Amino acid sequence: MRIDIISAVPQLLEGPLNHSIVGRAREEGLVEIRIHDLRDYSKDKHRKVDDYPYGGGAGMVLTPQPIFSCVEQLTSRRPYDEIIFAAPDGELFEQEDANALSVKENLLFLCGHYKGVDQRVRDELITREYSIGNYVLSGGELPAMAMTDAIVRLLPGALGDAESALTDSFQNDLLEGPVYTRPAEFRGMNVPEVLRSGNHQKVKEWRLKQSLERTKQVRPEMYKKFRNEQ
Amino acid sequence: MRIDIISAVPQLLEGPLNHSIVGRAREEGLVEIRIHDLRDYSKDKHRKVDDYPYGGGAGMVLTPQPIFSCVEQLTSRRPYDEIIFAAPDGELFEQEDANALSVKENLLFLCGHYKGVDQRVRDELITREYSIGNYVLSGGELPAMAMTDAIVRLLPGALGDAESALTDSFQNDLLEGPVYTRPAEFRGMNVPEVLRSGNHQKVKEWRLKQSLERTKQVRPEMYKKFRNEQ
Repeated sequence: MRIDIISAVPQLLEGPLNHSIVGRAREEGLVEIRIHDLRDYSKDKHRKVDDYPYGGGAGMVLTPQPIFSCVEQLTSRRPYDEIIFAAPDGELFEQEDANALSVKENLLFLCGHYKGVDQRVRDELITREYSIGNYVLSGGELPAMAMTDAIVRLLPGALGDAESALTDSFQNDLLEGPVYTRPAEFRGMNVPEVLRSGNHQKVKEWRLKQSLERTKQVRPEMYKKFRNEQ
Repeated sequence: MRIDIISAVPQLLEGPLNHSIVGRAREEGLVEIRIHDLRDYSKDKHRKVDDYPYGGGAGMVLTPQPIFSCVEQLTSRRPYDEIIFAAPDGELFEQEDANALSVKENLLFLCGHYKGVDQRVRDELITREYSIGNYVLSGGELPAMAMTDAIVRLLPGALGDAESALTDSFQNDLLEGPVYTRPAEFRGMNVPEVLRSGNHQKVKEWRLKQSLERTKQVRPEMYKKFRNEQ
């Protein structure tokens, strides 16, 4: 898989893409991630990529020229399955979107400036608009990294143990229940007896029960959906 | 405001906290952000911070000792308004949570390992559990940074122009409509005439109409709520 990310502030994309699971997936050649500095594509002599909004108001808006130039250069070299814009007013990104995108070959993310991008970019170039939640962030960089992380960890071989991703929250439409590790007693607080019993059937039953309870409590709409599908 | 972030992989926290709006807010003294490497608090001679889950299964779980030691050292120095755990099975973080947290003084974030943290930590130390969306990420670092970003940009003086945050999507319970910048014509695509008219009343009406339409189309539940409150 190849992921390209276009940003006006590429320094924001340090860290999360270079360490842990995504970093290892890159090292092992499971995914190639390329960052593109929007300013490199600006025809303005000061490498400007934004301007004031028409009609007035606060905040700057990303201009069309550098984005069109960058996207066209990339799409001339390979076909992209999706050109994704991270926007607060996009469709809500969920686990099933991560699942669907994880089997694609080439993905292109455009990170918005915090006040937005010229609408002509969205009308002409973008194939999907995703929001990672109902809150406003300074830019699309964190959302692009979050989506990349959610996708890359699903690639075969990205996690140490193939089973891990399948037992995650959401993958069976339920939240995961509580987990415990050593020591068995910590400051008078004990790990539930059943988890130390070695009885796999009982452990499984206990986990399902906990999982159902937590889902019912924290995400009632998810619980209802799960119940209806049984 | 002061924000402390505890992580087992602090390298993931580079980038987003050092540039753009959060970076500037730190430079201007609006917020102090401190990163704590969980391994520094481990009493294990190999600085281990995780272990296998009781009851079996894939993935590693963060052990209680280093987290208790770190949190206790921090809370002995100042009171924290909230100790927040970023978890896929937490309450959904939304703009109103960012608003509420932005007026607090001291916030502490604990980033989970991708498979979770010993439940005794959650039971004893954590005051809020937030998920940034219905998808699974490798760890709590991206969520902690996203929440930090959403909160810090609301601090007075963090944005260049005080008006900006108030016209954001979600702040008036509607998504923002399309925005345009120069040039007025780009490859035959024109900026809507009304935005270039200089008629502020008409611009305002057009924007509200666009905003309502976009909200109705992309987030019907948000649109319904807005209509009911009018």
